[in-house]
Amino acid sequence: MINVGILGATGYAGIETVRLLANHPNVKITRLISHSFEGKKISEIYPSLEGVLDIECVSLDVDDIAKNCDLVFTALPHGVSKDVIPGLYEKGLKIIDLSGDFRYNDVKVYEKWYGESHPSPELLEKSVYGLCELYREKIRNTSLIGNPGCYTTCSILALYPLLKASVIETKNIIIDAKSGVSGAGRTTKLDYSFCECTENMLAYKIATHRHTSEIEQELSIAAGSEVMVSFTPHLIPLKRGIYATCYANLSNNVTGDEIEKIYKDFYENEHFIRIMSPGKIPESNWVAGSNFANIGFQIDERLGRIVVCSTIDNLIKGAAGQAVQNMNIMMGFDEKAGLDMPAMYL
Amino acid sequence: MINVGILGATGYAGIETVRLLANHPNVKITRLISHSFEGKKISEIYPSLEGVLDIECVSLDVDDIAKNCDLVFTALPHGVSKDVIPGLYEKGLKIIDLSGDFRYNDVKVYEKWYGESHPSPELLEKSVYGLCELYREKIRNTSLIGNPGCYTTCSILALYPLLKASVIETKNIIIDAKSGVSGAGRTTKLDYSFCECTENMLAYKIATHRHTSEIEQELSIAAGSEVMVSFTPHLIPLKRGIYATCYANLSNNVTGDEIEKIYKDFYENEHFIRIMSPGKIPESNWVAGSNFANIGFQIDERLGRIVVCSTIDNLIKGAAGQAVQNMNIMMGFDEKAGLDMPAMYL
Amino acid sequence: MINVGILGATGYAGIETVRLLANHPNVKITRLISHSFEGKKISEIYPSLEGVLDIECVSLDVDDIAKNCDLVFTALPHGVSKDVIPGLYEKGLKIIDLSGDFRYNDVKVYEKWYGESHPSPELLEKSVYGLCELYREKIRNTSLIGNPGCYTTCSILALYPLLKASVIETKNIIIDAKSGVSGAGRTTKLDYSFCECTENMLAYKIATHRHTSEIEQELSIAAGSEVMVSFTPHLIPLKRGIYATCYANLSNNVTGDEIEKIYKDFYENEHFIRIMSPGKIPESNWVAGSNFANIGFQIDERLGRIVVCSTIDNLIKGAAGQAVQNMNIMMGFDEKAGLDMPAMYL
Amino acid sequence: MINVGILGATGYAGIETVRLLANHPNVKITRLISHSFEGKKISEIYPSLEGVLDIECVSLDVDDIAKNCDLVFTALPHGVSKDVIPGLYEKGLKIIDLSGDFRYNDVKVYEKWYGESHPSPELLEKSVYGLCELYREKIRNTSLIGNPGCYTTCSILALYPLLKASVIETKNIIIDAKSGVSGAGRTTKLDYSFCECTENMLAYKIATHRHTSEIEQELSIAAGSEVMVSFTPHLIPLKRGIYATCYANLSNNVTGDEIEKIYKDFYENEHFIRIMSPGKIPESNWVAGSNFANIGFQIDERLGRIVVCSTIDNLIKGAAGQAVQNMNIMMGFDEKAGLDMPAMYL
Repeated sequence: MINVGILGATGYAGIETVRLLANHPNVKITRLISHSFEGKKISEIYPSLEGVLDIECVSLDVDDIAKNCDLVFTALPHGVSKDVIPGLYEKGLKIIDLSGDFRYNDVKVYEKWYGESHPSPELLEKSVYGLCELYREKIRNTSLIGNPGCYTTCSILALYPLLKASVIETKNIIIDAKSGVSGAGRTTKLDYSFCECTENMLAYKIATHRHTSEIEQELSIAAGSEVMVSFTPHLIPLKRGIYATCYANLSNNVTGDEIEKIYKDFYENEHFIRIMSPGKIPESNWVAGSNFANIGFQIDERLGRIVVCSTIDNLIKGAAGQAVQNMNIMMGFDEKAGLDMPAMYL
Repeated sequence: MINVGILGATGYAGIETVRLLANHPNVKITRLISHSFEGKKISEIYPSLEGVLDIECVSLDVDDIAKNCDLVFTALPHGVSKDVIPGLYEKGLKIIDLSGDFRYNDVKVYEKWYGESHPSPELLEKSVYGLCELYREKIRNTSLIGNPGCYTTCSILALYPLLKASVIETKNIIIDAKSGVSGAGRTTKLDYSFCECTENMLAYKIATHRHTSEIEQELSIAAGSEVMVSFTPHLIPLKRGIYATCYANLSNNVTGDEIEKIYKDFYENEHFIRIMSPGKIPESNWVAGSNFANIGFQIDERLGRIVVCSTIDNLIKGAAGQAVQNMNIMMGFDEKAGLDMPAMYL
Repeated sequence: MINVGILGATGYAGIETVRLLANHPNVKITRLISHSFEGKKISEIYPSLEGVLDIECVSLDVDDIAKNCDLVFTALPHGVSKDVIPGLYEKGLKIIDLSGDFRYNDVKVYEKWYGESHPSPELLEKSVYGLCELYREKIRNTSLIGNPGCYTTCSILALYPLLKASVIETKNIIIDAKSGVSGAGRTTKLDYSFCECTENMLAYKIATHRHTSEIEQELSIAAGSEVMVSFTPHLIPLKRGIYATCYANLSNNVTGDEIEKIYKDFYENEHFIRIMSPGKIPESNWVAGSNFANIGFQIDERLGRIVVCSTIDNLIKGAAGQAVQNMNIMMGFDEKAGLDMPAMYL
Repeated sequence: MINVGILGATGYAGIETVRLLANHPNVKITRLISHSFEGKKISEIYPSLEGVLDIECVSLDVDDIAKNCDLVFTALPHGVSKDVIPGLYEKGLKIIDLSGDFRYNDVKVYEKWYGESHPSPELLEKSVYGLCELYREKIRNTSLIGNPGCYTTCSILALYPLLKASVIETKNIIIDAKSGVSGAGRTTKLDYSFCECTENMLAYKIATHRHTSEIEQELSIAAGSEVMVSFTPHLIPLKRGIYATCYANLSNNVTGDEIEKIYKDFYENEHFIRIMSPGKIPESNWVAGSNFANIGFQIDERLGRIVVCSTIDNLIKGAAGQAVQNMNIMMGFDEKAGLDMPAMYL
């Protein structure tokens, strides 16, 4: 049993973390930190939690957190975490950060795509990229996790094994990704209002979305050479779910069965990764509400191309669920603890 | 640990029962019965269950069920259960039936509203109406539960305490209820297709919906005299959720605090019932994905009337969740076992 | 051909008025007034209008409007219209105001429900309540219209003929109304964000919504005595549409055919009012995208009660469409001009 | 004024054609043919049309149609049109066929992708592919139109000018397309039920969708050499709208302004095609409810690639609207007649 705090508990990634931890067998939530809602019960802000978790939000106090928490999840607005995390790290807390700040191996990549200097480059060296299925060993031995982005997790899980196995070319990779609106977080921007989103769809930030850099970092590691991808995010009128349709040219003749074997070998014993048989294409409601990622594919023989479809719940495997999975690995808990719900389907 | 079978496992109420039981600490699912999908894995029909529950559906065989199950949930199409349940009952199985067949105290009421003779009136006498918060003791001591309807649960929970306390009149009770589309079940009727339902709303079966009779049976018991209600169901473009807005004339001057006290006394220690303070009106996403019922109210002093708003997840507290709660009571398990997830909110 | 200006053109009611007028055979849009978007083309703000209407928004200048417009629609935020309308009225412009300011016969009612003193009570006396089917003659002869609210139009159209014909009692009238989210206007409030609204439903402002007073004013006129109603608005996850389910006790034995005749006589030759035969209940997509109101009903003989279901498109018959219909009446145009599109259904 | 019949009037493409024609200034609807609803008023099946169009559906009678119609729209289930169209053609009727049967230049392409022999290859030679902006002259002079598919129109409009201008390579073209559910037509298949579609998204028929062949036919003409594309359709939880995100490698250095000029020159004076300035990406609600196609693009200089986003209303420019536009061209009417409504936005 460990004591856990959540910083930024009232945003959508934060509250999803709270929801998952509420019934975690090894966790006691001791602190919820919220600047905007200090003094309010979390169940007043999210009445879904009434009778389940009724503790009060408090303002940030590093000493108080250090005294009352073993591990913290930081789901803070961009630009706030940089002032907070070094202090928490010094106190010896384990930290799982849901922002983009600690996801990079190379500070220059961060600075190029985020357009600002990195707040604490010395910590960046110590942090581990928390894509559980790729870096489980490193995760076990770190105190600071850069929890991956939602688009990122979905895309990397789909393409990493194929690049590692050298069965696709590194040029002409296209990732056409579709996200539910909760990916934008708890926001009052008009763009995310019901009337603007429902019965609407659109692409945005074409060629410039920050997650591109995170995807390229990992796929380049997989390929052993630089990989650059077209990444196009789309806003889709649903709440939860990311769907990445990935296109790559096959580097040689390979059958569907061989592709399936590459995936199944790579993700052997990975509970949360489900590989579909050739031609079976996943739907986003097969994973919604769960920490699963489903990966299906179709080989287009006419064009010598593979189309891989990957889907996760953006709030779970794409944020809070993976964060909990990272905690489970760091603390030596059962990796499925608190994450053993099947997808909702309905 | 008991062995459980689900008959009609592939309908929406059935599969929701399966989903809830998949992680129940005291249950092993041993049989899934489906006429339409015999020989198929449940995870082929609902790929959301892949890796969680991959057992095959089998056709109905009463002897086989009796041998391999201690308790069954029957979520069968109307008209099928009548041929099945007596046989299972004779074998000594505990049965939780999700149809309307065993919800009535008076066979005549059933026959009037269902327009047909009751299949097994002798069992009707032995069955218990499974509204857990009202009949916990009887549920503990029966082998056959008539699990309440979705509209019914939501409406009765809202009005029972007020009638019991005689603070509202028995005349002029109006229940205006709104349901998500999953209430119609897994159906291919054009009426429930996406294009006909989305951006649409409608009332249906005004003054004739069968659940009216179930509501009136219980409210009459509460009042100690006959209660008849206007019950109007509406179809609303969302998946999960029922929202009942109930109108009743106050029989005397009573304050919001007094009403709150009546509810809180009546539902004392009921984990799944959450009473809002006066004037706080619940939203359906405060309960969606959970077994909770939220009840809020507003007194209209100008008119001497109370408006009670009650909301549940129609598939959980309105069907599968209440069925599991009934099982927990019957078997002496922790009543929250398998039902301890907070609502999703998002 | 008249010159028309729209004040508050960029809100949802405003832009819907613009859309309807864009193809009106007798109208030239000469001015779009928007404080927030001065200097921007309307088609930049609403790209749906590109190539259809590309004129620039300008700031408010009463003299300029008076010179360039014969008639104005005012769809201004509450509190702004009061400073503007008297000036426009003095200049001799015809005005159709979509706010609540000019809908009342009795300034005291306004002040009670709006909680503030009326901005220009002297104009209130000159204004006409613009419910076209009730006040066509008066509308023809005024320069100032108080365009009815959305909930209001839907509810009054449903109940006025029955009260007029004295077939229902004035006590125990319940109006349970459901609205799409566009009724909240173009707003950045979190409550109306996609993730908070979709898969959610709720009642709000029970017993206190301002439209109650507007409904009671008209229904009291119909009845010839004071009528007070329970009015409960609900937020429903769709864009367009209002659905009012109205309950009233029948004052004597009356058949469905008689009720139908009362409605058909009352709305004889009314193009935009469609009365359903007894027992046929309308759906909101039968009117969405059009200026029609559909009214259906069911008599509950068991309870001596009638349930009337009325539905309109809140942005059209509930706002912009009725405003255009009012203009058509005031100017002597064909009442259907600019409003002759069938409902979308899909 | 011409007399028009619609065969298959009660499907979604059929009824949308009826809706658009209901107010067309040059059209009188004289016959609605429906096998399933013979003898029923169209306004009983689609009550949205009550008071607008109340004529009865009749069964198919070629002689009767020939006598009472000048032109017919055929929106028949696949496999039915082949038995009907030759007879109508012989009678000298003008025909606009919304099926795939008359969209091909090469019968072999049809037979390969449809997996069956063509019903009337001799008529295929006489038919014209009804993509108005590409084949206006031919459309003017034919009696038989193969009205393009929805995905097809959206994709071809986006890529044709770029291939024609040789600024993109013919290899590695990817079209990732998203469609609203109405694209599936009026169907009772479970896959298109509300509960299966809402809060869900998925790709389907990867590498095998028939529209691929139609797209390749036209893009090959544009390029002057064979073009093969990856085409991936997706089902998205909205009613109306297609969004095609198209990826192509630039064949040389070209600026956004140059691309914009290529598009604007190609679509000069085309009322229904709206080209966005570089970097402005369209949203599907900018066209929903209208016959417009919006095309925007972003050049990715890092990768030497262009991403083109094209969006139409699948039921209008992707079916019924384009069919009406074809009629307008064939008959010498104003091309915008009956199609001059702005998009709904809301």
